[in-house]
Amino acid sequence: MSLQLDSQGRLRHLLTTEGLPRELLTRILDTAESFSGVIGKSVKKVPLLRGRTIMNLFFEPSTRTRTTFELAAQRLSADVLNIDVATSSASKGESLLDMLHNLEAMQCDAFVVRHADSGAAELIARHVRPGVAIINAGDGRHAHPTQALLDAFTIRSEKGPLEPLTIAIVGDILHSRVARSEVHAFLGLGAGEVRLIAPRTLLPRCFDGLPVKVFEDMDAGLEGADVVIMLRLQRERMSGALLPSESEFFKRYGLTEKRLERTSPQAIVMHPGPVNRGVELDPRVADGPRSVILRQVTNGIAVRMAVMSMVIGGHSDEAAIRNEEVSS
Amino acid sequence: MSLQLDSQGRLRHLLTTEGLPRELLTRILDTAESFSGVIGKSVKKVPLLRGRTIMNLFFEPSTRTRTTFELAAQRLSADVLNIDVATSSASKGESLLDMLHNLEAMQCDAFVVRHADSGAAELIARHVRPGVAIINAGDGRHAHPTQALLDAFTIRSEKGPLEPLTIAIVGDILHSRVARSEVHAFLGLGAGEVRLIAPRTLLPRCFDGLPVKVFEDMDAGLEGADVVIMLRLQRERMSGALLPSESEFFKRYGLTEKRLERTSPQAIVMHPGPVNRGVELDPRVADGPRSVILRQVTNGIAVRMAVMSMVIGGHSDEAAIRNEEVSS
Amino acid sequence: MSLQLDSQGRLRHLLTTEGLPRELLTRILDTAESFSGVIGKSVKKVPLLRGRTIMNLFFEPSTRTRTTFELAAQRLSADVLNIDVATSSASKGESLLDMLHNLEAMQCDAFVVRHADSGAAELIARHVRPGVAIINAGDGRHAHPTQALLDAFTIRSEKGPLEPLTIAIVGDILHSRVARSEVHAFLGLGAGEVRLIAPRTLLPRCFDGLPVKVFEDMDAGLEGADVVIMLRLQRERMSGALLPSESEFFKRYGLTEKRLERTSPQAIVMHPGPVNRGVELDPRVADGPRSVILRQVTNGIAVRMAVMSMVIGGHSDEAAIRNEEVSS
Repeated sequence: MSLQLDSQGRLRHLLTTEGLPRELLTRILDTAESFSGVIGKSVKKVPLLRGRTIMNLFFEPSTRTRTTFELAAQRLSADVLNIDVATSSASKGESLLDMLHNLEAMQCDAFVVRHADSGAAELIARHVRPGVAIINAGDGRHAHPTQALLDAFTIRSEKGPLEPLTIAIVGDILHSRVARSEVHAFLGLGAGEVRLIAPRTLLPRCFDGLPVKVFEDMDAGLEGADVVIMLRLQRERMSGALLPSESEFFKRYGLTEKRLERTSPQAIVMHPGPVNRGVELDPRVADGPRSVILRQVTNGIAVRMAVMSMVIGGHSDEAAIRNEEVSS
Repeated sequence: MSLQLDSQGRLRHLLTTEGLPRELLTRILDTAESFSGVIGKSVKKVPLLRGRTIMNLFFEPSTRTRTTFELAAQRLSADVLNIDVATSSASKGESLLDMLHNLEAMQCDAFVVRHADSGAAELIARHVRPGVAIINAGDGRHAHPTQALLDAFTIRSEKGPLEPLTIAIVGDILHSRVARSEVHAFLGLGAGEVRLIAPRTLLPRCFDGLPVKVFEDMDAGLEGADVVIMLRLQRERMSGALLPSESEFFKRYGLTEKRLERTSPQAIVMHPGPVNRGVELDPRVADGPRSVILRQVTNGIAVRMAVMSMVIGGHSDEAAIRNEEVSS
Repeated sequence: MSLQLDSQGRLRHLLTTEGLPRELLTRILDTAESFSGVIGKSVKKVPLLRGRTIMNLFFEPSTRTRTTFELAAQRLSADVLNIDVATSSASKGESLLDMLHNLEAMQCDAFVVRHADSGAAELIARHVRPGVAIINAGDGRHAHPTQALLDAFTIRSEKGPLEPLTIAIVGDILHSRVARSEVHAFLGLGAGEVRLIAPRTLLPRCFDGLPVKVFEDMDAGLEGADVVIMLRLQRERMSGALLPSESEFFKRYGLTEKRLERTSPQAIVMHPGPVNRGVELDPRVADGPRSVILRQVTNGIAVRMAVMSMVIGGHSDEAAIRNEEVSS
């Protein structure tokens, strides 16, 4: 996916985790770690992107995701604009590309794009002018790379390097751009074993040929896992009768304390949020000692800061960030 | 209400004016005064909350109130995020507390909360993690403490200390969180006499036992008053036939120039806004020389700056603010 | 229009280009040029309006225009608030002027006003208190002065001074506040010849007495023109049957490559956007080498910065801007 990298292998856009070199994935996590170490403690903001403009271009509403990008941009001292596309020029019959060219003519440095159609972020990246970066904040069923990276970051913070770890992803994999991006990020970072646990009807073909292990039986799939990632049941995305009922789903694929006993004793539980309690997770597990769900949210800021600082202005160098004059 | 104060008696949250010690109420007004003295003149911003993040969490829309909090935060150099809850994760079935925990995981320093349910701000304050402050921007019929404080501030600026003053609150007291918070703030600050003027059907029970004087006859209630606070007729909140008609209401409880003659000669007229002209106030009174309604709005910024700076980071010390390096 | 100028001839409000002295129009363009020279290159922001507050008061939605004002304000280091009037206090029955007085009591320095009614910006300017500036961002069919100024700026950048130029404005002139403001700006700047090309039904009376040339036949009107400004067909504003059909309109007044041959060889093509491709412009012209449509968008930021800096704080002096300490 050379669209994402420049000729020196630096990150130009972040569209998908698929095909990103291990070294680059690691550098993103290292950069996030350096932000995570300072932000929220003594230092509140870094001036890395002062004077830069980032536009949140959300064709699909998501207050939560938009907010984390907005916060990340503010902590890098960038100016942020939220363009709510639903209520904007769409009503005047403007095409996506016309709108894009107009916004880039306003000399924006990066667009954070969320769109209901798979491939929208890549389409935009192909047409944007040089020097403007695209960050995919979720496109259809395709990819959600910053979520996958913050999950990888969380796993590394909690459990160390991914090489020896067994990571199980559970639930509605068919509709999940998160799962797709996680698989590529975890494999790219050299994870020991990646497992997919789902009913046959919710397992897509796109992982054929990748070194993942597929389980229909949840108990078998959890056996010895170090990390369990529960996916959100995308009820609003389901069309037709892929599932019998939510209670039936919970019976077969809900994570309970009992089921958690099958995992490795120190296993952590993750979820991209928002949790449907009692559908994907027993509330006791969601709020229990193994859950790192809220730490994922916190880590999301540092990871998005890392990605933003790397795609804009080439500040991909961790040392540069540490040496920057910081304002408290 | 120890939930609002820490062990050293400093303000942790601002949920209600009820039970706040007189000394603390006075310190809030003094702090606001120190901001009011500098802001809008030579100095435009103070860097007190640089790098801090404040989220406006409005479950009930109120552009006017939200704007004053946003401005106050900007003048303290904080970053502000507006979370429009109506259009956000509610649609994904997330609970209030789940949303709260997610937002606080983003390392926000304070939430400004507006909610249609009485007690919502307190509920949130009970569940928020240590170090995150809650400021109530109006909850149901319960409380609207910053409005009450800006009213107290306005009275003090216009008329001096509250001890010798007679303050009359007129109108729809039953539905008014403003009236509730004002009574507690004014009594807490040692006001000479607090009067409530309303028809029996619009007088709640909650003031039983407090040293307030109740009047059904407006002329009697205005006699010698130094301050007249007209409440907004909450037409949109009224259910059933508590009142005959708006014109009937104006005849009995509207403030006219003639009625104003009953007050003390220098009495001031206040209203939390927006005014229903011809319903609560004769336009000649609303725009007349006794009206300080727009000064209330101006004072609202300084008072909200004071509250924000006191609940975040413990900058409750007036001297500290004066000594802060300021950016012009 | 002395409402716009103070006693020393400085810009207090920008409501219309009608009647603005040539020297002042030129100074706006010169100031924009000085911003255009620095912004987006090494320097990202200038601190000219640090601590100033600008409110975008949009009674009519326009994400595109609002965004350019928001960006311009950010690059001047001002704080910006967007007041979406449709969803705000209007619902509480507050009058326009009550709302205005309330917002100005919050110590705002300027309002950027967009309104569906002709004359709204002027009405507001007549009632706003001294020291608060009004910038008209489009009012009904009346005026859109910043668009006209950015068009004049674009013409000057591309073609040099306006004196020798022939400028043709084509299309739905009747409904176009852009056309009205352009005519006054171009004539005010001494343009050689201003032509209006439109069907009789779309030609208003308001230009009677002005030195403009009117053409019903497009080919004749384009003859030798140096600048062709295509107007947007305001389909949403049309009431009744002023036009046969869009394809008929395109046949008579659409700009094609063939028609463009009638103009001067170096003629540029402009459009205020968003373009209805195939209605006003052949896509090959819109995206062709003569089109400067996206440069108009870029110039819009610098021109709005110029206007904002001139109406707020009297920084109308180009030299002052250059000498300001800049933050990169």
